[in-house]
Amino acid sequence: MKVSEALCKPSDEVKQLLEGLYECSPWVADKFVKERTAQSQGKGDDGAATAPITTVTGLAKALKSIVDDSTQDEKMLLIRSHPDLCEKVSEMANLSEESQDEQSRAGLQSLTVQEFADFERNNAAYKRKFEFPFILAVRNATKYTVLSAMAGRLENSAQQEFAIAMQQVHKIAWMRILAKFESDQPAGFLTCHVLDTANGCPARNMRIQLHRLSPPESAGLVGEFVTNSDGRLDGGPALKGSDFQVGSYEWTFYAADYFASRGTFTSGTPFLDVIPIRFGIDNPDDHYHVPLLVSPWNFSTYRGS
Amino acid sequence: MKVSEALCKPSDEVKQLLEGLYECSPWVADKFVKERTAQSQGKGDDGAATAPITTVTGLAKALKSIVDDSTQDEKMLLIRSHPDLCEKVSEMANLSEESQDEQSRAGLQSLTVQEFADFERNNAAYKRKFEFPFILAVRNATKYTVLSAMAGRLENSAQQEFAIAMQQVHKIAWMRILAKFESDQPAGFLTCHVLDTANGCPARNMRIQLHRLSPPESAGLVGEFVTNSDGRLDGGPALKGSDFQVGSYEWTFYAADYFASRGTFTSGTPFLDVIPIRFGIDNPDDHYHVPLLVSPWNFSTYRGS
Amino acid sequence: MKVSEALCKPSDEVKQLLEGLYECSPWVADKFVKERTAQSQGKGDDGAATAPITTVTGLAKALKSIVDDSTQDEKMLLIRSHPDLCEKVSEMANLSEESQDEQSRAGLQSLTVQEFADFERNNAAYKRKFEFPFILAVRNATKYTVLSAMAGRLENSAQQEFAIAMQQVHKIAWMRILAKFESDQPAGFLTCHVLDTANGCPARNMRIQLHRLSPPESAGLVGEFVTNSDGRLDGGPALKGSDFQVGSYEWTFYAADYFASRGTFTSGTPFLDVIPIRFGIDNPDDHYHVPLLVSPWNFSTYRGS
Amino acid sequence: MKVSEALCKPSDEVKQLLEGLYECSPWVADKFVKERTAQSQGKGDDGAATAPITTVTGLAKALKSIVDDSTQDEKMLLIRSHPDLCEKVSEMANLSEESQDEQSRAGLQSLTVQEFADFERNNAAYKRKFEFPFILAVRNATKYTVLSAMAGRLENSAQQEFAIAMQQVHKIAWMRILAKFESDQPAGFLTCHVLDTANGCPARNMRIQLHRLSPPESAGLVGEFVTNSDGRLDGGPALKGSDFQVGSYEWTFYAADYFASRGTFTSGTPFLDVIPIRFGIDNPDDHYHVPLLVSPWNFSTYRGS
Repeated sequence: MKVSEALCKPSDEVKQLLEGLYECSPWVADKFVKERTAQSQGKGDDGAATAPITTVTGLAKALKSIVDDSTQDEKMLLIRSHPDLCEKVSEMANLSEESQDEQSRAGLQSLTVQEFADFERNNAAYKRKFEFPFILAVRNATKYTVLSAMAGRLENSAQQEFAIAMQQVHKIAWMRILAKFESDQPAGFLTCHVLDTANGCPARNMRIQLHRLSPPESAGLVGEFVTNSDGRLDGGPALKGSDFQVGSYEWTFYAADYFASRGTFTSGTPFLDVIPIRFGIDNPDDHYHVPLLVSPWNFSTYRGS
Repeated sequence: MKVSEALCKPSDEVKQLLEGLYECSPWVADKFVKERTAQSQGKGDDGAATAPITTVTGLAKALKSIVDDSTQDEKMLLIRSHPDLCEKVSEMANLSEESQDEQSRAGLQSLTVQEFADFERNNAAYKRKFEFPFILAVRNATKYTVLSAMAGRLENSAQQEFAIAMQQVHKIAWMRILAKFESDQPAGFLTCHVLDTANGCPARNMRIQLHRLSPPESAGLVGEFVTNSDGRLDGGPALKGSDFQVGSYEWTFYAADYFASRGTFTSGTPFLDVIPIRFGIDNPDDHYHVPLLVSPWNFSTYRGS
Repeated sequence: MKVSEALCKPSDEVKQLLEGLYECSPWVADKFVKERTAQSQGKGDDGAATAPITTVTGLAKALKSIVDDSTQDEKMLLIRSHPDLCEKVSEMANLSEESQDEQSRAGLQSLTVQEFADFERNNAAYKRKFEFPFILAVRNATKYTVLSAMAGRLENSAQQEFAIAMQQVHKIAWMRILAKFESDQPAGFLTCHVLDTANGCPARNMRIQLHRLSPPESAGLVGEFVTNSDGRLDGGPALKGSDFQVGSYEWTFYAADYFASRGTFTSGTPFLDVIPIRFGIDNPDDHYHVPLLVSPWNFSTYRGS
Repeated sequence: MKVSEALCKPSDEVKQLLEGLYECSPWVADKFVKERTAQSQGKGDDGAATAPITTVTGLAKALKSIVDDSTQDEKMLLIRSHPDLCEKVSEMANLSEESQDEQSRAGLQSLTVQEFADFERNNAAYKRKFEFPFILAVRNATKYTVLSAMAGRLENSAQQEFAIAMQQVHKIAWMRILAKFESDQPAGFLTCHVLDTANGCPARNMRIQLHRLSPPESAGLVGEFVTNSDGRLDGGPALKGSDFQVGSYEWTFYAADYFASRGTFTSGTPFLDVIPIRFGIDNPDDHYHVPLLVSPWNFSTYRGS
């Protein structure tokens, strides 16, 4: 559902739509609706008009800010409203609908007996130490993620772990927003740039492919490119509009072919030949610039903008 | 065949073994044998004893040095002794045995008509411009490598292209040495190191896998590791001895799981989750250190030592 | 004073020595002494012997763990015990001795009227929002650090800012420990490594200098080196023992000279010529590995180990 | 002198202006003038009109292409026309005017007796091995550059060293062109970008300074900046037009202040605090993009575009 379509529904329906985003905490949706109503009636804090929310990013930010402005006690209550991961693995029931789906993806059912024992022991230790449940956004996690996150975070101090738990709470809300809503006009796009750091220039005429790896239903090759004289892709973004979807992607850079075309020395079995760069797109409203800096002997990439 | 086993054979057999390494240039093997004989009889340039050659690296170096010390005319003759890549694609005959095998791997038979026409035209232009055949070590190349190398190198100056051709001649010899000989005791090994550049420390407890990708007959998982508190692998090198083979490999780093264990913020769909690093091992006598420097938002790797 | 020398004094003297480390919070020193006494009498939690503390790192860790294990309310009290940075700029009085010195170094006296007004306004907003004073370890800070930290952190949520304030509290304690104590046998040392990423090998024969920049009284050239065939420094660490001091340093790498020696192309005015790498040593017990990865067109460095 | 102003002079004057650029090789200037005349009369190779040359880059390219198209013998003659660096250090006479100036800048007069002896011995060995003089563009070199270049290049093969000598010949010509001519409308400019790789976003509100280090007569602060929300500089390029001069520069990035404003953890004495990035601008017609990728624990930069 488009964000603005959702938000222009009657208050009760809006509340219902937003209620599940922060676990068992309808007060967040409630406060959101009240604030928006007040603002649309010019009763905002400063009486100024507020821009309408039209993106998932904007919606997430507004809800997050309500939670951030709540008291320490309200936050603790919110954290404590989250289900116990461990119980749920046994039961897989009584979860809010969203949680259930998230946790089955993490493959927690496939835990071995030994792993489950570790999990249970650490989970108990966690609750004893922090007095709130272990929270982790599990939609893109595996059982290894869960196990290592629990073991690692057990060593944190209480205030660190409180901050991390709140981060996870917001991340879970974000994933639920993405599953339920979409920006009116998603503005995100993906660009690339290849720099040849052995020769100090843009890498011209390098072949590149882009594959979508997940979600599985749309996996496959989504583009083939050749860099131009500035090391960029002709024809604009590699992905934009409806093609720019949240998920996991992989660039394939044909680096050794490029260096062969320049006569730059590479070893017989090139140290770097075909270079895969796997990356995730999390926000449909953002510009993702994912470049490659490459010589025959090293490379790097980063989340640019 | 072990290098020292080969080199202690009678002179005529040694010559025969080495003859095909530099294309149609038996004078290289000839000179090598003469020099070794003279040295073993204390007739070396400086009368000093010469260390016996026991590695493929040592053998390649000794032969390369003979070629490097030859005259400009001898080098040009050596370059001109190489077959015309283009003719061979049509004929696939009359090649030295080694060349034939190399070229079939490049998949040049699968050229489309258009590609073949481009290839032929560029090849003719190359010979016209430089007056020697286009040389490229093709064992790990694809048709794209060949086509882009030819198109790109056509723009070089004559002295650049002469230098590149000699580089390729040595690379071809190296690949042939590797196919025929092996070091008495290959000393090469592979190590890893993971640094967490978001937190400024070694990445502890990161899961890593190592797969061999080629040669195809030995492809598969070759190791699973977890980094220790120094970000390195317990138990020494990931590969050494007979497991350390020339070929193509891939590390798989479970970066998002690691950051989850530290509570370091990553996005819902992590920008970096599972990170593949594909690299080639070219020299069975060398130490390959292939580390990962990683934050949730960028990473880099390099050929270390 | 050596750590073990300090810790073997009578309990009252130990308490006095440690009292000022956590601002106005003698309970930390108190608890430390009690725990150590209990442990030395075999009354530790688990009755096991505890290793003696002999390093500043060990001392800092022990004190930090006491603070981390305290309640939320105790932590809040600790935070609130810190002086108001703003008042102190006007007064520069009634500070614990350590705070006074730290703040004069930050050059807060040199604030312009406009800057002071910004500072005061943000400081007031900070206290209003978070209900505790703005805390920042200022020993190595300038007025710009203070101003930008205050402006930036004002936007945080309460739980983020609470976590950051605690980080700063620990950092201040650490700086005070360093000013007062030293490890029995400081084990820290500094190493270097230069990799040539254009040629895929260690950079051999690169000239390097090391200067100490601060503290001012010991500033100056502390070493000149030439890399060996592995790209490292012969003769072991660049700094160790009593030469390895907390402070600010700068490597000077003569990169263009190195590339000239290899014949690697650089531009007329080289893009990279003399490369300074400025870095700080914070912990006298740690290994600092500060390498350079360099081609004529890019470079990087990192905190290695 | 503006390039197009120079090139529209009578042929004889043009020849005279260009004659000294390639050492003792008036045939290059001669051929250049003939080709331009032919082209302007529609007698070019293909009868097509040729675009007028209006930049130093264009002029250098045209002259280089004449040299590249000459025969191997002509190139060898050109190389051999260069003065012997070693003789000249003793004499400092009979050099073309340009060479003299260049060499005095390299500080070769300050060689110690031992260094001069090394220099002389290596120089003799070089000439014996390659049968042509050692060529190095020395305008930005020091005696260390010269000594290490000579020692290092002595180990090259003849064809490698021939290619490097030609590179140096072109580089010397380029430096002489820059000293004598300027582009009609220099299009070069300098930009910056700062990415925070710890937080995966542009670094907002980071203070940056830019100093010119050389030529000495124009050294000093040339700009102060604060990054905008995209991590870039408001107001366009940091240098453009007549401010964008060939020479040596240094960015100063106030990284620790930036991280303090975000509350990102840095050590007491920050590992990275003020980060200098020293770089050279060689081409007045080019875009230089010199970014910083930085976390509290590592950074990198590169020649972007």
